[in-house]
Amino acid sequence: MYTIKVTTTGPEVLFDITGQIVKLIHSNNIESGAVLIYCPHTTAGLTINEGADPDVCHDILAHLQIMVPNSAYFHHVEGNSDAHIKASLLGSSVLVIVKHGQLQLGTWQRIFLGEFDGPRTRTLWVSFLS
Amino acid sequence: MYTIKVTTTGPEVLFDITGQIVKLIHSNNIESGAVLIYCPHTTAGLTINEGADPDVCHDILAHLQIMVPNSAYFHHVEGNSDAHIKASLLGSSVLVIVKHGQLQLGTWQRIFLGEFDGPRTRTLWVSFLS
Amino acid sequence: MYTIKVTTTGPEVLFDITGQIVKLIHSNNIESGAVLIYCPHTTAGLTINEGADPDVCHDILAHLQIMVPNSAYFHHVEGNSDAHIKASLLGSSVLVIVKHGQLQLGTWQRIFLGEFDGPRTRTLWVSFLS
Repeated sequence: MYTIKVTTTGPEVLFDITGQIVKLIHSNNIESGAVLIYCPHTTAGLTINEGADPDVCHDILAHLQIMVPNSAYFHHVEGNSDAHIKASLLGSSVLVIVKHGQLQLGTWQRIFLGEFDGPRTRTLWVSFLS
Repeated sequence: MYTIKVTTTGPEVLFDITGQIVKLIHSNNIESGAVLIYCPHTTAGLTINEGADPDVCHDILAHLQIMVPNSAYFHHVEGNSDAHIKASLLGSSVLVIVKHGQLQLGTWQRIFLGEFDGPRTRTLWVSFLS
Repeated sequence: MYTIKVTTTGPEVLFDITGQIVKLIHSNNIESGAVLIYCPHTTAGLTINEGADPDVCHDILAHLQIMVPNSAYFHHVEGNSDAHIKASLLGSSVLVIVKHGQLQLGTWQRIFLGEFDGPRTRTLWVSFLS
């Protein structure tokens, strides 16, 4: 299990971690299998989507906020239930194929940490499956 | 493949299955890899979120109901399309790293079966990946 | 890594790919482990839900459109941000157990490509984990 650290830059951000995953694959000479990226936090999640146009990330975040506003009826006293809900909507892990030592992403795909209660320093766990 | 049984306690519940997964890891002497937990039902799903404060689960369920009410325009005659949609929003599986024989969850994380059409006895399938 | 091709039949479709996955398992004599199905596109996703009554798929798609309408406030100039958001809500992959050469799905479950910006010819990547 490997650990990467990410310092997010705002309260709600889709933070591109693709470069750090590619580095881990290369430095560990992973040839084939799959890479599991796991988020051990409960107010952040992981997703794969378009990285070419930053407006896509903007729209994803803007719409998640409309779907899950920070509502008055929430019971959780920390006041960040919206962040917990968004984390569950994205999910706690992504799994991507590795082939010939290369991370197999689609042409427009990047891997993002979805930060919903930042800015914070977040830790992600990475494991290689065969 | 291992099977665990869960009897949910209400129509909509986030039911903590972490203890049963930990037991399976220990009784099978799994040292490292990942554990795949799979839900073979279509009106229940799996998610990982905070277990310390039960209000977080309350808020997740309450807001899912607002996002996906049981609407009059649904066609499915069984009348539980809201449960099917919530199942797809959470997803049918979670994948968690195992290291030194320990399930690697974040400090606040627990694994939940999301029951959306209960109470029922549900079966989950568990498999260990290397 | 194996590739399957799917030509979707409308702008928004849940396209059943179960048969193609079963074929791949048999033609490659996969006995046990898990099959990872990965969608390299950013306006389509993967989900597992009921396939018996087509009204379930209808209701899932209809409600996703209500939850994520194609809104005027989106910035992304291609005008398909709703499709990107739905792709992230479903997720980019599904993982299903294989046992004794059989894909382990629940009684009512089928594997669907969620097409949100079709019709298009889509490619899916399939990998077997041990």
